[in-house]
Amino acid sequence: MAGPLTHFDAAGQAHMVDVSDKEITARTAVAEGWVRMAPATLALVREGRAGKGDVLGIARIAGIGGAKKTADLIPLCHPLPLSKVAIDMDMDEGLPGIRLTATVRTTGRTGVEMEALTAVSTAALTIYDMLKAAEKGMEIGGIRLLSKEGGKSGTWTAGA
Amino acid sequence: MAGPLTHFDAAGQAHMVDVSDKEITARTAVAEGWVRMAPATLALVREGRAGKGDVLGIARIAGIGGAKKTADLIPLCHPLPLSKVAIDMDMDEGLPGIRLTATVRTTGRTGVEMEALTAVSTAALTIYDMLKAAEKGMEIGGIRLLSKEGGKSGTWTAGA
Amino acid sequence: MAGPLTHFDAAGQAHMVDVSDKEITARTAVAEGWVRMAPATLALVREGRAGKGDVLGIARIAGIGGAKKTADLIPLCHPLPLSKVAIDMDMDEGLPGIRLTATVRTTGRTGVEMEALTAVSTAALTIYDMLKAAEKGMEIGGIRLLSKEGGKSGTWTAGA
Amino acid sequence: MAGPLTHFDAAGQAHMVDVSDKEITARTAVAEGWVRMAPATLALVREGRAGKGDVLGIARIAGIGGAKKTADLIPLCHPLPLSKVAIDMDMDEGLPGIRLTATVRTTGRTGVEMEALTAVSTAALTIYDMLKAAEKGMEIGGIRLLSKEGGKSGTWTAGA
Amino acid sequence: MAGPLTHFDAAGQAHMVDVSDKEITARTAVAEGWVRMAPATLALVREGRAGKGDVLGIARIAGIGGAKKTADLIPLCHPLPLSKVAIDMDMDEGLPGIRLTATVRTTGRTGVEMEALTAVSTAALTIYDMLKAAEKGMEIGGIRLLSKEGGKSGTWTAGA
Amino acid sequence: MAGPLTHFDAAGQAHMVDVSDKEITARTAVAEGWVRMAPATLALVREGRAGKGDVLGIARIAGIGGAKKTADLIPLCHPLPLSKVAIDMDMDEGLPGIRLTATVRTTGRTGVEMEALTAVSTAALTIYDMLKAAEKGMEIGGIRLLSKEGGKSGTWTAGA
Repeated sequence: MAGPLTHFDAAGQAHMVDVSDKEITARTAVAEGWVRMAPATLALVREGRAGKGDVLGIARIAGIGGAKKTADLIPLCHPLPLSKVAIDMDMDEGLPGIRLTATVRTTGRTGVEMEALTAVSTAALTIYDMLKAAEKGMEIGGIRLLSKEGGKSGTWTAGA
Repeated sequence: MAGPLTHFDAAGQAHMVDVSDKEITARTAVAEGWVRMAPATLALVREGRAGKGDVLGIARIAGIGGAKKTADLIPLCHPLPLSKVAIDMDMDEGLPGIRLTATVRTTGRTGVEMEALTAVSTAALTIYDMLKAAEKGMEIGGIRLLSKEGGKSGTWTAGA
Repeated sequence: MAGPLTHFDAAGQAHMVDVSDKEITARTAVAEGWVRMAPATLALVREGRAGKGDVLGIARIAGIGGAKKTADLIPLCHPLPLSKVAIDMDMDEGLPGIRLTATVRTTGRTGVEMEALTAVSTAALTIYDMLKAAEKGMEIGGIRLLSKEGGKSGTWTAGA
Repeated sequence: MAGPLTHFDAAGQAHMVDVSDKEITARTAVAEGWVRMAPATLALVREGRAGKGDVLGIARIAGIGGAKKTADLIPLCHPLPLSKVAIDMDMDEGLPGIRLTATVRTTGRTGVEMEALTAVSTAALTIYDMLKAAEKGMEIGGIRLLSKEGGKSGTWTAGA
Repeated sequence: MAGPLTHFDAAGQAHMVDVSDKEITARTAVAEGWVRMAPATLALVREGRAGKGDVLGIARIAGIGGAKKTADLIPLCHPLPLSKVAIDMDMDEGLPGIRLTATVRTTGRTGVEMEALTAVSTAALTIYDMLKAAEKGMEIGGIRLLSKEGGKSGTWTAGA
Repeated sequence: MAGPLTHFDAAGQAHMVDVSDKEITARTAVAEGWVRMAPATLALVREGRAGKGDVLGIARIAGIGGAKKTADLIPLCHPLPLSKVAIDMDMDEGLPGIRLTATVRTTGRTGVEMEALTAVSTAALTIYDMLKAAEKGMEIGGIRLLSKEGGKSGTWTAGA
């Protein structure tokens, strides 16, 4: 059975749920996603790494910025300090496109799943923006949580 | 051949490209995406529409907010006024999950493709946030531009 | 009969309403409000004007900032450039307290009523913040639109 | 005698006051306010609850967002994480209009009075925005702190 | 004689000055500045260009972001759309350090001098942040307007 | 030899560095800078202190706001609560111009050097903005860290 939706009270009204009594623990979340594009577009990214416009470097900065803006974007997210944000990006000829993985860490009362997912989404949108002059038909997908650690519910890992 | 990456100058340095000489025209962009979830989670959304916590209503507001924050999230996007943002959401038992479509309009010198894509992404992330207490394994995908109108490059429509 | 709620479509879904076809005209809105406080607290404000802490000057800056953040605060407000924001504040011994009036102007497709009201609210909240060490029981009230000009609906003036 | 204005130093210069030595305690603040409107406008809100445009649901989300933006709006407020934000809204035929109450909680070195007051103000402004097509003459008032708990100054409750 | 301070009214109260009647013209501003550092620190920047951490690329993105946030940072600045932001950075062994030049363009009623100066400042601060683990004693200076074009006051160029 | 650039990982990719294991300590940073202007412009500032437009008071508020926005401006800065921000400004006839000093304090896992430097920069830019109608050729410079305390690296003080 699916659990209750904690973002609503008993009357169905949205609220930012009270986490005062939650324990302060180290919390980590890892999320992933991808941007699929034509091989010719991916080749432009590869060239950029060679000094002609660093698409991935800019997307990484945007993704870190997105993690920091999570509570500003997602209405019921708690604002919280972050102790780490890292984004890995790999060019995958088989996709073809870019695969992204974001790792976010905090020491606090709530998890950072939304921060990790927002980091991936923002970096993916930025990749689209940087490359859209070459290809408008790119697709962003596969955005999901890979794992979370810390907090009362403990460790969770996505199925294969 | 893929086109040039306009966000970089001849030396490969990123810049916010000069649009001073672009014509002011009406511009519209439509983007789509989805959030896939277990049938039991989708049932929670359906119940919410009946008064127990309006997941989709909140996601719609978040998506509109996301469109307004696009230039803050995407490093090389031009800040611009928006004249319309609308987000449609449908529950799709076949997915199963929620399908989202965002329509954004402006009258200006640059298109609003990124605003439409950001609206979809932000609304999708919010759906995830509202439902994650029930299911952490949801996936966000299928985020792509459906069409754009206006500007020098005119109308573009995604292939089937 | 009260008019329709334009922020909702026919199905009752919220959207940022399309203003593409609205005329670009000069638009002005004036709003007012007050902060009521004990005479001793008002005396502190008066002393501040004499160089011991400029409560009203800081509140004025905050109100102008609030006007600029309106589209960030109010979900369905259109982001728009502002061509003028001014806030007048008067000490009123009879209230006793501070009376605020904000005037906002733009040249655009939508009115600036919300910007004027947000300017008043933000300045009033700032006055409360600056003075709350002296008195927690202050009250903010009387926030209303005084007049608006421009746009299809033309001039509107509040009744006495 | 009214207390000193802690937001100013001895020379009357504004500063964000040093709270380093304040104790970290659980802190709660409750604030209230109202939006007064014509009975016909209130009827539109009531209909909305029945599925034709959820004014109060959107105002609630805006109010929670306002609480999170408090340190961005109020110049000398300390930025701080929030552990709970809830906003109750009731339709009051006697007013006639909407009564709002916001409850904000944190565990930290400063109180959340401003966050509670900002939540009420932002939700009230959003109600005005959603309904202004029907009635421009609505008034926002009665914004005041009801109670605060925690911190060195302890519990404070508004007089009747 | 020095001119009047337009950000204040006749009574000395700050306001966002009315630009409604100003002409909409193309406006450009160019500003410069530098970050002075030890030769060994500058060498780290140079190595980064060779693939070990792109300090200048990240500072450029930050500077463009700073230009977009100008009206959020500077209290009396008008929010306005930008049509171009570009930042040039050069390594200067003689300084030794980095020299920055920002060019900002808009078509509007107010100039973009503050946007160009804010772009330079934000990029310079980011360079400091990226390199401060190596050297805390760096200095930021030489921030000034080089030229502005457009608007009633026409072209202005800094003296040598 | 200059130290490593902690904002990059071993592969030269930017990340927000993990501070989870850093100790929570009281941390203070002090930074300074100046705005150089013509004697006639400085005279305008002095007159303003006498009631005709308070340039320094507004710049102080802007500087405090800048400190709060640091993590939003500087890509790899950790968002963190601040427990104190104060900005001192002195008119220096010898410069001639305004000298600024910002003191920022927090209790956390990372230092507040960037917050102090950003406070100085934002206040200096605001002084420029307030006075630019009188003099466009002002220069901002001398922005540097004076001292930092707290954290693993302990106390650091700038050379004379």
